[in-house]
Amino acid sequence: MRLLTLPADIEIISVGNELLIGKTLNTNAQWLAKRLTSLGLNVRRITTASDDVEEIGTVVREAVNRKPDFLIITGELGPTFDDKTLEGIAKALSSELELNKKALAMIEQKYRDYAKEQSLEKIELTPARVKMAKLPKNADPLPNPVGTAPAMIIEQERVKIVALPGVPSEMEAIFDESLAPMLKKLVGNVTFYETSLGVSGIMESELAPVIDVVMHDNPYVYIKSHPRGEERTPHIELHISTTAKDSTAARKHVSRALIQITEIIQAKGGKTKPFKTKD
Amino acid sequence: MRLLTLPADIEIISVGNELLIGKTLNTNAQWLAKRLTSLGLNVRRITTASDDVEEIGTVVREAVNRKPDFLIITGELGPTFDDKTLEGIAKALSSELELNKKALAMIEQKYRDYAKEQSLEKIELTPARVKMAKLPKNADPLPNPVGTAPAMIIEQERVKIVALPGVPSEMEAIFDESLAPMLKKLVGNVTFYETSLGVSGIMESELAPVIDVVMHDNPYVYIKSHPRGEERTPHIELHISTTAKDSTAARKHVSRALIQITEIIQAKGGKTKPFKTKD
Repeated sequence: MRLLTLPADIEIISVGNELLIGKTLNTNAQWLAKRLTSLGLNVRRITTASDDVEEIGTVVREAVNRKPDFLIITGELGPTFDDKTLEGIAKALSSELELNKKALAMIEQKYRDYAKEQSLEKIELTPARVKMAKLPKNADPLPNPVGTAPAMIIEQERVKIVALPGVPSEMEAIFDESLAPMLKKLVGNVTFYETSLGVSGIMESELAPVIDVVMHDNPYVYIKSHPRGEERTPHIELHISTTAKDSTAARKHVSRALIQITEIIQAKGGKTKPFKTKD
Repeated sequence: MRLLTLPADIEIISVGNELLIGKTLNTNAQWLAKRLTSLGLNVRRITTASDDVEEIGTVVREAVNRKPDFLIITGELGPTFDDKTLEGIAKALSSELELNKKALAMIEQKYRDYAKEQSLEKIELTPARVKMAKLPKNADPLPNPVGTAPAMIIEQERVKIVALPGVPSEMEAIFDESLAPMLKKLVGNVTFYETSLGVSGIMESELAPVIDVVMHDNPYVYIKSHPRGEERTPHIELHISTTAKDSTAARKHVSRALIQITEIIQAKGGKTKPFKTKD
């Protein structure tokens, strides 16, 4: 891929053994990647790690060393013994966890609300519940509008490190409420624009040099072929995308490439039509 | 997680910009992780990287340095210019690509078959098609029973490096036909066994110390809580799993932990029932 000059690089780390044993499909990483890309950001790498504290410490340290603008870590923020993400981050930063007063106040408020809903006088703040307020030193908690465990953000060596819960509804709500506004400020008006073309009657191996030519003529546009049938019953999705300073320019760049590639494919006897994705 | 003594560590690398922009959900990594785990193997890390040749070289080199028994790389083996996985692997191994005669013979046979099906005299072996036969020096091609691009395996510094195509049907067929038999030989009779318990009427934060006690009493068993509702309408999946030398031992270890945790939860006023997953 030709590198586009993007204003901000992001890395994602997904923590959880359930991902490594194939029990859970990593929909969180896709949700984040799509949202970040549409905000105009460049997701550079996604790492899935176990919930072992040493391993989390290692992958976080490695990512910080690569100096992304933001490092977003999801999963394992809850009250159970294997929710080791914050401990792993502290380890990576050669820091330690300490009780964060703002985080504790958020958690206390949650349990007061739950008690009220259940007409209980009080829900006790057990050690497992207090654990969720223990953040790396100098971290700031981010409120969780859906669940109990607060998220957090901390800056280290100019990398902003964000830890979000693994429960999708909680992760999404905190992203939209707290993170998206920060990221928008960072990137300004950059826009990502994409479209897909369905191609049939021509093999992927025949399309390869065509894509080469069109990408050469359209330096801001990235084109990628995705075989959707098999080589013998050719059916290909051509995905055309760009990132530009404003949405008019982005659309113009993509349209120009789309017209050129459609003409070449048709001249070679291939058929094209708008590609509809299932999702 | 307490580390179980497992006979073989695996790393997975998924290559493809479509994964980093959130266009495609990484179902390949989940499929592989599930299959590898059920064979008794330990998936240690999953990395998603862009299809930039430098970046592929970097992530492959980093993974080889961590010395897994197998490193499985998926995606970008096809004929187009951005199918850079083999070039990236060659870079990581300080080697280069060369035309592999066995791979070329496989590809020639494919195009003879396709020509026959389409009643053509011949389908020409264009440079884009020959590209799929250029493997790192000393690699062995693995036949692709579904598509055109062969997979490959190469051993470096005692790490077996395998590259599989990104098209799921091709990846799965090559895994089952060529890789699974090698992996079974490697692990012997080790079995992974898992079950899930649905828990309600008790909060995740109250379960945390219970899980601690039961895992302490059952050193071979790993228990993890997955909140399925919200903290205020508690509904939790407890996932209990183990890996053992034979399936009878695996089942026995899991059953013993299941009975103990069920009794404690019920004594605390919680309700339990078998947990049914959606998929």
